[in-house]
Amino acid sequence: MWGKRDDMLVHERDPFNAEPPRAALAGRRTTPPDTFYSRNHGPVPDLDPAAWRLTVDGLVEHPLDLSPADLRERFDEHEVAATLQCAGNRRAGLAEVRAIPGEDPWGPGATSTARWTGVRLADVLAAAGLRPEAAHIEFAAPDVSRLAVPPQPYGGSITVDKALRPEVLLAWAMDGRPLPRVHGAPLRAVVPGWIGARSVKWLTRISARAEPSDNYFQATAYRVLPPDADPAQAGPDDGIPLGPIVVNCDILRPDDGARVPSGPTEVTGYALAGGDRTVARVDVSADGGRSWTQAALDDGDSPWTWRHWRTTLDLPAGEAEIIARAWDSAGAVQPESPVHLWNPKGYANTSWARIRLTCT
Amino acid sequence: MWGKRDDMLVHERDPFNAEPPRAALAGRRTTPPDTFYSRNHGPVPDLDPAAWRLTVDGLVEHPLDLSPADLRERFDEHEVAATLQCAGNRRAGLAEVRAIPGEDPWGPGATSTARWTGVRLADVLAAAGLRPEAAHIEFAAPDVSRLAVPPQPYGGSITVDKALRPEVLLAWAMDGRPLPRVHGAPLRAVVPGWIGARSVKWLTRISARAEPSDNYFQATAYRVLPPDADPAQAGPDDGIPLGPIVVNCDILRPDDGARVPSGPTEVTGYALAGGDRTVARVDVSADGGRSWTQAALDDGDSPWTWRHWRTTLDLPAGEAEIIARAWDSAGAVQPESPVHLWNPKGYANTSWARIRLTCT
Repeated sequence: MWGKRDDMLVHERDPFNAEPPRAALAGRRTTPPDTFYSRNHGPVPDLDPAAWRLTVDGLVEHPLDLSPADLRERFDEHEVAATLQCAGNRRAGLAEVRAIPGEDPWGPGATSTARWTGVRLADVLAAAGLRPEAAHIEFAAPDVSRLAVPPQPYGGSITVDKALRPEVLLAWAMDGRPLPRVHGAPLRAVVPGWIGARSVKWLTRISARAEPSDNYFQATAYRVLPPDADPAQAGPDDGIPLGPIVVNCDILRPDDGARVPSGPTEVTGYALAGGDRTVARVDVSADGGRSWTQAALDDGDSPWTWRHWRTTLDLPAGEAEIIARAWDSAGAVQPESPVHLWNPKGYANTSWARIRLTCT
Repeated sequence: MWGKRDDMLVHERDPFNAEPPRAALAGRRTTPPDTFYSRNHGPVPDLDPAAWRLTVDGLVEHPLDLSPADLRERFDEHEVAATLQCAGNRRAGLAEVRAIPGEDPWGPGATSTARWTGVRLADVLAAAGLRPEAAHIEFAAPDVSRLAVPPQPYGGSITVDKALRPEVLLAWAMDGRPLPRVHGAPLRAVVPGWIGARSVKWLTRISARAEPSDNYFQATAYRVLPPDADPAQAGPDDGIPLGPIVVNCDILRPDDGARVPSGPTEVTGYALAGGDRTVARVDVSADGGRSWTQAALDDGDSPWTWRHWRTTLDLPAGEAEIIARAWDSAGAVQPESPVHLWNPKGYANTSWARIRLTCT
C-alpha cells in the first residue's frame, strides 16, 4: 500500500498508519520513502499541483497566495536532514501497562529520517511580514479526519520562535525526489525536533495567530493527560500540549523476542534528543540497569537527526533482557519504567528501551 | 557569615558555601538575600566600584571598557525574576547511593529566586558588535579557586544563542537593592534557566569566542561523567557539559524526618523546569508512586522562576514516604531513582523528591 515495503507493520489501512520493522531502520542514517513510517488521521488527499495554492494569512502585513512556481522562484532552496517521530512512538510499551483504547500500538518504528528540501518557513513569513502580535503559526490541510471531535481537516500550530528557526522547512522533496503523495505532496511542513504531528502534510494554508491553533489535533489531542483523566471529556485546559520531543531511544538489533547465539552480541539502535538538544550518551545494560556499557554513537547527519548507536555485550545462555537509555545534551536521561509514564492517550513513552532475547 | 541568617546550612566557610533550610524557602516566591544560597569556588573578592571596569573583547568589532556609570547610561535597565539553581542541588540524594568525595552534600536549598536588575547582555554585545564567528560568550572573574586544576580565577561560558536572549542580564541589583558583595557586587551575570555556575559573579571581562571557555569550571568541572570515570583524569572530551537545567522539584514542607499529626497534611514545595521550558504539572504520592495527586501550582513570577506547589494528603499514623515529581512543558518527567543517576561529581540529581515522615 502507498508504495511501502511488504513487511511494514500496518496498524490501520484507512486512515493509513504503518511503521517499518526494527531491522528496516537499523544501520541506515536515512530511511527510504518506502520504509518511512506513515501516520494519518484521515484519507490521503490527491491534490492537483497545477491548481494547488498556499495561502499565508492571519497576523501578517501582506497575505500571500503562492503557486508551486512562486515558492521555488521567490525563496532560496534549503535542505535539512531531520528525523520525524510520532508522539505515539513506543506506545506499545505503555499499552502493556494498561490498555489504551482507540490508539494504535506503535512500536519504535514511528521514527524515521530523511533529507528534506524546500524553503524556510521563516523566509515565507518574512515575505508576508509577521505582525508583532503573532505568537503562533498554524498549519492547515484538507484531509478531513472523522476521528476528530467534531470531524474536521487536520491541523496544528507551532510557536513563532520555532517557526523562525532555519531548520523549519516547507518541503516539496524527500531524499532528493518529489514528495510521495502519502508523505504530503505537493508541500508539507517539516518541524525538526518537534512531534511529527506538527509537520503537517498537504499544506494549503499557513496562518499567523496570537494563540495556538483551535484545531482538534492541537487543542485537544496530542496532550499528556493525567492517568485518571477521561480523554473524551478533556479540553484545551487539560494536560500538557506536546511540541518539542523529549530524549528517547530504542533497540533495533537484535529484534525483540529473537533467539541469538550466546557470547559476544552486537546491539544497535537509535536515539533522538528532540527540541534543540542533541544526544550526548547512550547506555546499554544486560543486568537490569545495575551496570551499563556506553555505546558508540555515530555523528548524525545534522543536529536534527537521530544518532545510531552500537555496542557489544557478552551474553550467557538463557533468557536476557537488554535495556538502553539515552542522555541528552542538557544531562536529562530517560526515566526507568513505563508504569509511571502511562497516560490515557499513550503519548511520550520515553521509558528505558527493553527487548527480551533467548540466548542459545 | 556574609549577612546570612543564622540557620543557614554551611557546607564550607572558605570558600563560603551555604544553603537555607527547606522551611526558609517554603511559600516565598522570592528568596531574601540573607536566605539566598551561596556557592563559591574561591575567596569572595572585594572590588572597588570606583576602580572597577568591565572589559568586552574577543570576537567583537569594538572592544569596550565600561565603568559602572557607562553601563547605567549607555544601556536600558531591565528587571528579570529568575531562579538560580546549583548543578549540585540535591547532591545529598546521590551521595546516599555512593560517596562523592570532595563535593558538598547540597540539599534542595541550592535553589533560590530573586528579581535581578541590570542591563541585557544582548545590548552590551550589540554595542560591541559580535563577529559572525562568535559562538560562545565567556565570563571571567577575579576569584582565584585553589580547587581548580591548575588554580585559576573562576569562569565559564554560554552559547551566543542564549547570550542574545532578553532574559540574560548583567545585574547590579537583587530585589531592588545593590548586589551584596557575596552575591557578586558590583556586577554579575544572571543566566536564567541554566545552571547557577554560568551566572558568574564579580564579572570583570566578557569575551566572545568561537569555542566554549577553556576555564576549568567549563572545560573540566560541571560535567555529568559516566559512573566509572575518574574525575581526576577527566578532560574536555569527557562527560556531558552542563548548561540548561533539567526539570526538577523538591518538597519544602513538612521537613524531611519531621513528626507530624496523622490526617490531612499539607505538603508544599518548588519545581523548576530549566532551559526554555516551564513547569507543567507536579504529582505527589504517599504510596511509592502507585497513585498520584496533582498539586496546585502557583504562577511563578516569570517564565524563569520556580513554581511553588501545594497539595493535601491524608496520612495514616506510622512511617510515611512522600514523593514528588515534576513534568515540564515538553512532557518530560523526573526519573525515579538516584541510583541510576549517580555520577562521580554528583551533578543533576533530578530523581523524584522524597521525604520521610513519622505520622503520630
